[in-house]
Amino acid sequence: MAKKNAVYAQSGGVTSVINASAYGVITAAREADFIDEIYAGYNGINGVLEEKLIDLGKESAETIAALRYTPAGAMGSARRKLQHLEKNKAEFDRIIEVLAAHDIHYFFYNGGNDSMDTVDKLARFAKDHSYPLQVLGVPKTIDNDLPITDNCPGFGSVAKYNTISMLEASMDTESMYRDSTKVFVLETMGRHAGWIAASTGLASRSESEGPHLILLPEVPFERERFLKAVQDTVSRNNMCAVTVSEGVKDKEGRFLSESGGKDAFGHSQLGGAGQFIQDLVKGELDLKVHGAVLDYCQRSGRHIASAVDVEQAVACGRKAVELAGQGMSGVMVTIVRDRDEPYSWSLAHTDAGNIANQEKMMPAEYIREDGYHITEGFRTYCLPLIGGEDYPPYQDGLPAYRRLKKELLPAKLPAFA
Amino acid sequence: MAKKNAVYAQSGGVTSVINASAYGVITAAREADFIDEIYAGYNGINGVLEEKLIDLGKESAETIAALRYTPAGAMGSARRKLQHLEKNKAEFDRIIEVLAAHDIHYFFYNGGNDSMDTVDKLARFAKDHSYPLQVLGVPKTIDNDLPITDNCPGFGSVAKYNTISMLEASMDTESMYRDSTKVFVLETMGRHAGWIAASTGLASRSESEGPHLILLPEVPFERERFLKAVQDTVSRNNMCAVTVSEGVKDKEGRFLSESGGKDAFGHSQLGGAGQFIQDLVKGELDLKVHGAVLDYCQRSGRHIASAVDVEQAVACGRKAVELAGQGMSGVMVTIVRDRDEPYSWSLAHTDAGNIANQEKMMPAEYIREDGYHITEGFRTYCLPLIGGEDYPPYQDGLPAYRRLKKELLPAKLPAFA
Repeated sequence: MAKKNAVYAQSGGVTSVINASAYGVITAAREADFIDEIYAGYNGINGVLEEKLIDLGKESAETIAALRYTPAGAMGSARRKLQHLEKNKAEFDRIIEVLAAHDIHYFFYNGGNDSMDTVDKLARFAKDHSYPLQVLGVPKTIDNDLPITDNCPGFGSVAKYNTISMLEASMDTESMYRDSTKVFVLETMGRHAGWIAASTGLASRSESEGPHLILLPEVPFERERFLKAVQDTVSRNNMCAVTVSEGVKDKEGRFLSESGGKDAFGHSQLGGAGQFIQDLVKGELDLKVHGAVLDYCQRSGRHIASAVDVEQAVACGRKAVELAGQGMSGVMVTIVRDRDEPYSWSLAHTDAGNIANQEKMMPAEYIREDGYHITEGFRTYCLPLIGGEDYPPYQDGLPAYRRLKKELLPAKLPAFA
Repeated sequence: MAKKNAVYAQSGGVTSVINASAYGVITAAREADFIDEIYAGYNGINGVLEEKLIDLGKESAETIAALRYTPAGAMGSARRKLQHLEKNKAEFDRIIEVLAAHDIHYFFYNGGNDSMDTVDKLARFAKDHSYPLQVLGVPKTIDNDLPITDNCPGFGSVAKYNTISMLEASMDTESMYRDSTKVFVLETMGRHAGWIAASTGLASRSESEGPHLILLPEVPFERERFLKAVQDTVSRNNMCAVTVSEGVKDKEGRFLSESGGKDAFGHSQLGGAGQFIQDLVKGELDLKVHGAVLDYCQRSGRHIASAVDVEQAVACGRKAVELAGQGMSGVMVTIVRDRDEPYSWSLAHTDAGNIANQEKMMPAEYIREDGYHITEGFRTYCLPLIGGEDYPPYQDGLPAYRRLKKELLPAKLPAFA
């Protein structure tokens, strides 16, 4: 079998461990007897469309090794989603043109639901147009909302980070309740599904430990019932720690932030579920409130990544190369849970079409009956995913993360309009 | 010398390492030949006034050892500040009454500016009233704004946490700039002085690395100049990461948040310097913006504490006991910088009256000429303070922090009105 080139691209919101998957793909590709060079799309699919391909051969061995512990998207990621094939055949044509120009016949795409739609479509398109191409999906999303796979690389680390944040801030609030803050509100990411918010429930190992209340997108927000729950918790427990997912909606299906007011400049306030809850509690219960919005810090918090997550991220990248070697295309690597305790897992795969554009919400059995906390079932599911610490090396008090040089391959084609 | 009892109390906003100082005081007190029992004020000075004294003898050796790595205020802290002696002699009388009832003649007070005012006043009051009492101050504040001491326990860890947060979130934004977020805004604590915000500048080891702009309370905010700086950075660098201290004010001396609007419930918006900057950039420059407000997570982020900070916090606690053994009272332990590189330090002390109610702002030589970044001088000052990692032990993926049982000594006095 003649060796062919491969390209790897990152897609969507980045994570603490997406580069660990890149590391897995790159190292396995370099060991594979069917891959010659491995390149990377500069800023994801944009780089493929624009023929901006990073020559990973120009990066030092140290830099490639550092991908394992460097957060965010080292090659640049993209929010760009390919248009429907019917609407924009030009994009698909262009991709094939660029790949052909560089003798690329393996495409590793590291992303979530949208990206698996691309994996599916691109694999079919190449086949229909008789271009020999294998397209492999490597799962990645902090949201943990991909179906079929037990969990998604990126989730374990964001869960660990948020859970520790809640644990620490809740203890902080506990120390201050006597004559200062009584309610602490942590806003987590998760626009659609509540996995991230729910994970913070792991910090609460007894009834007195925060979070005392968790607001999930799966449970419509009821203002009066929530306020009563906060008041009851403060009466019983002196203080109350609340986790609120940015995706929480009221009964009418509006995001909390949309039911709020205007910002200082008269714009409708966006992305403010945490601020909304803080204002509500302060205004209605007259309690001193503090709140945190961890935003990107949660998904790039590699300094406290889950060791299990890092291991799975690397393994998923390597597995995609293995599947390529087996002649597969249009599939995504999946994680299979073999046992809860002691936790063990293995890898499998599924058609990318089974993943594309689907969202796995928190099932009812993971949500406590009153809607405000997790169940033992969820704890059993989630606890192994935050297991172990995988600390990056440090230099001068800071993680020794590395940036790629990102030298591009010489372009061979005219620019893409 | 007959052994007498001692009490330790925590005061003000808690930190990642205030319990490390408690650990230092308790272990040194138990070794000292002049101290019999060491108790703790439940919720700080409140516990002393209300005769709610935690019997630390009832805590296990494991729990006391865990104070070294457990964040927040294990005994409860207090915002309560003693009234001026002239206005409220009753509080001082009551303190002496409670101390006398339990044969307490050593008082270790762990706090910042306000607390050192109490150390000073209480030491004088006891002397004037012929009650044998030694009052010792143990420094603590994330704000790093105490004079005389080189730095304050709590600062190194909050600096390390925020710097790593900025480093990681800035790399995240860098990955997304192409078709998503271009500006990231991190709000830090520090209502008066800019030390915490400035510390994030350590993450920027080259011009392209965030934070690109740091807004300090020491530099009046100029709207147009700031917007131009953001736009210039984005033009040059594709994205821009901004640190803003919650204490930034405009030329009229109003906090940014006060110059803003109303929240969803019509109240004036509070504590929203980060949100203000986000709204401003989004509204005026039409760039996609994300922002984080780490709030209590930053001051309780023990999982990534600075090893230097932990060591100094423990040492300051032990030193206070040593000073007590030397017959001192009304003084606070200070940290002396002996050398920058390699960093070395020792401990000394100063009259608490020299610390009371003073605030050490960032000196001009630590602020870059344009007001938007740090100087090499600041880097030399701050870098050693975030040095080294002191990881807590973990269990099931979470730090094995411990809570005290907080059993109280039987009360001997009538309740305090």
